This record gives sequence, C-alpha cells and structure tokens, in this order.
Amino acid sequence: MKRIGYMLVVIAVLTGGLIWMSFAPAHADGAAAPVFDVKMPAGYRDWKLISVAHEEGNLNDLRAVLGNDIAIKAYREGRLPFPDGAIIARLAWKYVPSEENNKVFGREQSFVAGDATNVQFMVKDSRKYAATGGWGFAQFNDGKPVDAANLSGCFACHVPLKGRDFLFTRYAP
Amino acid sequence: MKRIGYMLVVIAVLTGGLIWMSFAPAHADGAAAPVFDVKMPAGYRDWKLISVAHEEGNLNDLRAVLGNDIAIKAYREGRLPFPDGAIIARLAWKYVPSEENNKVFGREQSFVAGDATNVQFMVKDSRKYAATGGWGFAQFNDGKPVDAANLSGCFACHVPLKGRDFLFTRYAP
Repeated sequence: MKRIGYMLVVIAVLTGGLIWMSFAPAHADGAAAPVFDVKMPAGYRDWKLISVAHEEGNLNDLRAVLGNDIAIKAYREGRLPFPDGAIIARLAWKYVPSEENNKVFGREQSFVAGDATNVQFMVKDSRKYAATGGWGFAQFNDGKPVDAANLSGCFACHVPLKGRDFLFTRYAP
Repeated sequence: MKRIGYMLVVIAVLTGGLIWMSFAPAHADGAAAPVFDVKMPAGYRDWKLISVAHEEGNLNDLRAVLGNDIAIKAYREGRLPFPDGAIIARLAWKYVPSEENNKVFGREQSFVAGDATNVQFMVKDSRKYAATGGWGFAQFNDGKPVDAANLSGCFACHVPLKGRDFLFTRYAP
C-alpha cells in the first residue's frame, strides 16, 4: 500500500507539472515569457518631449522620448511609481551628418535625424503587466508590431532602473 | 555764385548723411543691425517636436527643435514660406555620456541630455522682421534674453537656407 501510495503521488506531481507546462509559455530562463498586447497609441507624434539622446554602436541613432499627458505630469512632479495610463514613446532616427549645416558652420560638427528606424512604447498597467514592473513593451517597425518573442528581453534591461520605475530616460529641463 | 552753390550741395549731402547715420544703428557691414523684441513664448516646453540633432565642437550639445501649432502645421504640410505667427524653439542641453546606461548596455555608447545650455526662438512676422526674411531671433540664457548685439549675426547664418524659408531643421518623420 505504501508503494502504491508513493506511485500515486509521483504520478500526481508529474501530471500536475505537465498541465502547468502546457499553460506556461516556453522561456529560456524558465520564467513565463511576457505576452504584451500594446497597440500603437494614436497621436503619439504630438506628445510632449521628455528628453533626447544619441546611441552609438549598432543602434547609431538620434532619439526623442515623448510622453502622453499622464507620463509628462508624473515626470514633472517626480511621481514614482508612474500611474496607470502613463505611456512613454521612444522615437529614433538614423544618425546622419548634415552636409548642408556643416557648409554653413565651416566645419564637420552637425548631426541630424535621418530616416526613422523604429518606435518603442512602454505602457503602464500595474495589474496587466505586474510581472514586468507594471510596464508593457512594444516596438513598431514601419508601423508594424514586432513579434512578441522579440520583446521578451525588454524588461530585463530595465530592471537595473527599478529605483526610477524602470525608466532609462530622465526629464530634460 | 557757382562756388557757393557747390558748397551748399556739399553741406546738404553731408548733413543728410549725418542725419541718416543718427537714425541707422551702427553695424560692421554697414547695414542696419536688426533690433528684435522677441519675448519668451509661454508654454514652449509643451510644444510638439520637429526634430533632434547633435552639434559637436564648441557647442557640444544635444538639441530638440519644437514648434508652436502654426509652425508644426506648416512643417507637416510643407508650406513655404511659413505663415506669420509660426514660432520655432530650439532647446539644447550639454552632451553627456550616460554611465548608468552604458553599464546596462555593457559598452560606451549612450549620450544623454545634461544641463540646459540656452533656448533660441525664431518668430515669423513678415512685416515686423522684413529685413531678416520675416524672422525675429531671440536667445535666452537661464531665462534671461541676450543683448540685441549678440543676435545681429543670427540671420546671416540662415541666409543659405533661403529655399526652406531660412530654417536649418527639417521635420523628422
């Protein structure tokens, strides 16, 4: 009886594990991969400016970070964590030397925004995206959303910024 | 009598010249220096983004160019010349490497906006500023306007951009 009881426990554990695995998305580090469903927010190109940056290396872009009204208000008030409904938009363009500007300045010094590369969004919904600090992530290339698999690494890079509610960008005065 | 007549003409010319000179502001190239009276426009930090840029050299800044609604509409519609009432704001910040970003990326690649340097404006009023392409120029350091003498060279740099209504910045998509 003892042996049968033990077998039943083993079967129950294995079955339970299989059932759990069938519901949990596969992920390299064993954690459930976040599935975001962030749509492109209407009118984001009209949002207010948070700050600007330049990334060298493979990205080699100039970028502007914009926020909807909820995000801008939180930034300006120094409110942490950001309230639900806050959306951050990161626009980026190729980093291009401006020959026409340099001609006027008489030296090679001017770099401007070339073609757009992609647009990324962070959307705050503390319940829906609880597993990723309350932020949902999205990227659009030429207006088309990238596959969810490509977003599974987003949050990991933001974790070191936990003290600032996972946001890289500081508000530019 | 001929001699007296000649002397009178000389005196008249000299006097006229002196009268003209007393009204014309002194300027290195002999032209009248523009006197702008551009006030800092309220709420410009909330304006929509036109584009971003990086200037190396002495400026060494990251910059964002914003526009009021009239300017943004004209940019998006490709309207030239810009209508009266258009205002362009150029914000700039020190070009600063971001140690905290680089730590996450694992390489030196990230440059962000540091302290603000100054803010410049171009205000379109085709009658008031007719001598300078219809644009009035202003610069504010720490919120204080710079002397008019420091603005006398502004327009000369913009002249090569006449075909784009004297604006360096193109709209970033």
